[in-house]
Amino acid sequence: MNDTATIDARVADLRIDGERLWQSLMALARIGATPLGGVRRIALTDLDRQGRDRVVEWFRGAGLEVRVDPIGNIFGRRRARNSRLPPIVAGSHIDTQPSGGKFDGNYGVLAALEVVRTLNDRNVETEAPIEVAVWTNEEGTRFTPVMMGSGVYAGVFPLAEVLPRTDLDGRAVGEELRRIGYAGTAPTGTPIGAYFEAHIEQGPILEDTGRTIGVVTGALGQRWYDVTITGMNAHAGPTPMRLRKDALLAASRLVGEVNRIALEFAPDGRGTVGFMQVSPNSRNVVPGEVKFAVDFRNATDDSLAGMDARLRTACEGIARETNVQAAVAQAVYFAPCHFDPACVGAVRDATARLGYAHMDIVSGAGHDAVYVARVAPTAMIFVPCKDGISHNEIEDAAPADLAAGCNVLAQAMLARAGAIC
Amino acid sequence: MNDTATIDARVADLRIDGERLWQSLMALARIGATPLGGVRRIALTDLDRQGRDRVVEWFRGAGLEVRVDPIGNIFGRRRARNSRLPPIVAGSHIDTQPSGGKFDGNYGVLAALEVVRTLNDRNVETEAPIEVAVWTNEEGTRFTPVMMGSGVYAGVFPLAEVLPRTDLDGRAVGEELRRIGYAGTAPTGTPIGAYFEAHIEQGPILEDTGRTIGVVTGALGQRWYDVTITGMNAHAGPTPMRLRKDALLAASRLVGEVNRIALEFAPDGRGTVGFMQVSPNSRNVVPGEVKFAVDFRNATDDSLAGMDARLRTACEGIARETNVQAAVAQAVYFAPCHFDPACVGAVRDATARLGYAHMDIVSGAGHDAVYVARVAPTAMIFVPCKDGISHNEIEDAAPADLAAGCNVLAQAMLARAGAIC
Repeated sequence: MNDTATIDARVADLRIDGERLWQSLMALARIGATPLGGVRRIALTDLDRQGRDRVVEWFRGAGLEVRVDPIGNIFGRRRARNSRLPPIVAGSHIDTQPSGGKFDGNYGVLAALEVVRTLNDRNVETEAPIEVAVWTNEEGTRFTPVMMGSGVYAGVFPLAEVLPRTDLDGRAVGEELRRIGYAGTAPTGTPIGAYFEAHIEQGPILEDTGRTIGVVTGALGQRWYDVTITGMNAHAGPTPMRLRKDALLAASRLVGEVNRIALEFAPDGRGTVGFMQVSPNSRNVVPGEVKFAVDFRNATDDSLAGMDARLRTACEGIARETNVQAAVAQAVYFAPCHFDPACVGAVRDATARLGYAHMDIVSGAGHDAVYVARVAPTAMIFVPCKDGISHNEIEDAAPADLAAGCNVLAQAMLARAGAIC
Repeated sequence: MNDTATIDARVADLRIDGERLWQSLMALARIGATPLGGVRRIALTDLDRQGRDRVVEWFRGAGLEVRVDPIGNIFGRRRARNSRLPPIVAGSHIDTQPSGGKFDGNYGVLAALEVVRTLNDRNVETEAPIEVAVWTNEEGTRFTPVMMGSGVYAGVFPLAEVLPRTDLDGRAVGEELRRIGYAGTAPTGTPIGAYFEAHIEQGPILEDTGRTIGVVTGALGQRWYDVTITGMNAHAGPTPMRLRKDALLAASRLVGEVNRIALEFAPDGRGTVGFMQVSPNSRNVVPGEVKFAVDFRNATDDSLAGMDARLRTACEGIARETNVQAAVAQAVYFAPCHFDPACVGAVRDATARLGYAHMDIVSGAGHDAVYVARVAPTAMIFVPCKDGISHNEIEDAAPADLAAGCNVLAQAMLARAGAIC
């Protein structure tokens, strides 16, 4: 029997095995490896099955009890002193973008596995069970909605609505789950004591500011819009400037406004026009129609509402000035997400104790943690990725940073699970 | 024998038959007629052959002697007092855009034919011969370059370079000319005493200002550019505004600059971005590359050079401000064209005598007359088209305006050819 001081010291000194974590990442990346060093392992394909089988094999090798729920989420549970306590869960996803990288998602799953392996090595028992989660179809590139598995788990999407969803070839989620052997029967939506997700940042902030760890306090809300500008096709030569109804001129001014609005709603405001379609798109014809998409993000609903109002005013004003029609339709709304202060605190405290350069950060992208946060206390840990690049075969991250994030994950989980031996 | 005063009075009273002109236009428009009321009669197709055969039949019916040159230009010559004088020529083209209208080109040919028919009706003889010209492949939609027939005639393109040009199916100009029976042997590039071309304006100025006749003093010069903006693809969510290299933001500012530059170089300046291609064109990805085209037009080389300099300065400045690369390549240059003052004067005088509301105008588009002007004294006559719309099946023009333009053409041609009976 150990006294508390001894336990605390052993926990404080506990470090994961960065080399083993890296080797696991590289091994999993070989399943669906692409010539450019990336990974293509799309949800519910044969390659996804191979990836899942490999992870499950590793889970069992680490002594975890594996269960699969009806949407294919995989949970590996570690024995604990008090098995009736809700588990302390960490994980992410192993499906990838069509041209994805080795780290997005995979890191969160394998960092959680590495925590378990480390606890096993050191014979650390916990009061509450620790679980590793693999959420189904986070990327949503084959089947929508994105973040499907965590969304079903959190009750955002009813299972019965998601299972019949089909891909472009007409194959359904439920059918593909059965085919690859991951249509499980374990109950979904069971209580979680706390959820942690380690992830590459997928942005450039940590790298730009020289920090190792991002203490993620939440995720930006999102409002997406479809805008259609209708002017009048006209010959570029014979049509004087003052008689034009140039849809691209109007659209271009709005691109500038989207950028200006994002800057006005700093520091978390983001405004992007990523998609634009010009018609008839002929070099000597004044464009009669332009369609484009607006992606607004911010940390609060108030700021998103302010950005929305500014966009609509800008559309009206610019349409009037340029003699065109502008139609604005909101296409998507995700509410801002605020993670659990106690879980975020556990991450921040662990980071500080470990001595890593860190900062609070808000996730600009969606993650499984955003849905899990609706039903359980949640936080995330970001580590830098090279040049902020993700969803790309050249996605890269430094082994030392990945190890650091995993050490933070271990400390935060233990703080919540209660190390007892 | 008539004295000069009588001749002058008879010429002054001479009016073309507007109804006959309209019926000819409608008859020719049935060859290649489209469901929406337009015409699709692409150069050197079977429909072009049918159109040419019809026009040649009309030429012969009007007593014209028909010859065809090696690029397929058709000339119908009317007997004159002095057949050794270079002819006074009027014409245009009968090939159309894929979704073209009834008037573009066809009007210039059939107005010239109507002048001949009217002179025949009134037994008016001329000192110099009058000719009607049909230039091959003005539109250039199947075979480039555009304005092919008049360009070969004027020595802009060597015949030997143009005949092997192929369409998308690999068929060559020379082969298609032979196939449709219009690979002629008459010499090309023979001297022309004066050339007049009547045409719909293809722009909105005459309609907007309530004028019937545009006295065309020349054609705008053109500089076309291909611009490539290179930034960096990035996630719309996790990438803060200040760390972006947004190619579409830069391109959009340049669209605004193109418009501003055209307004600065008023009254003839035109600036158009008609083509834009965004990559990867995904709604939640900051665009890493945008390609777009710039079309600048103006009446003088100095003003085009000024616009060119402003564009390059704007590209450099905006690229620097937005942290992207901008590459500007000039793709096309057409020099400004100034028509012959005496021919323009003949059109202006005729219009004034006939009492039509008129204005001087510069053509924003290219026409066969622009090439012919390189080798012969030339002028053009514009008439309004509905809403300024052309290169469109809904292209339309009022019979009274078409008749007015034809009356001006008749008077201008007679002024140059010398009415003698």
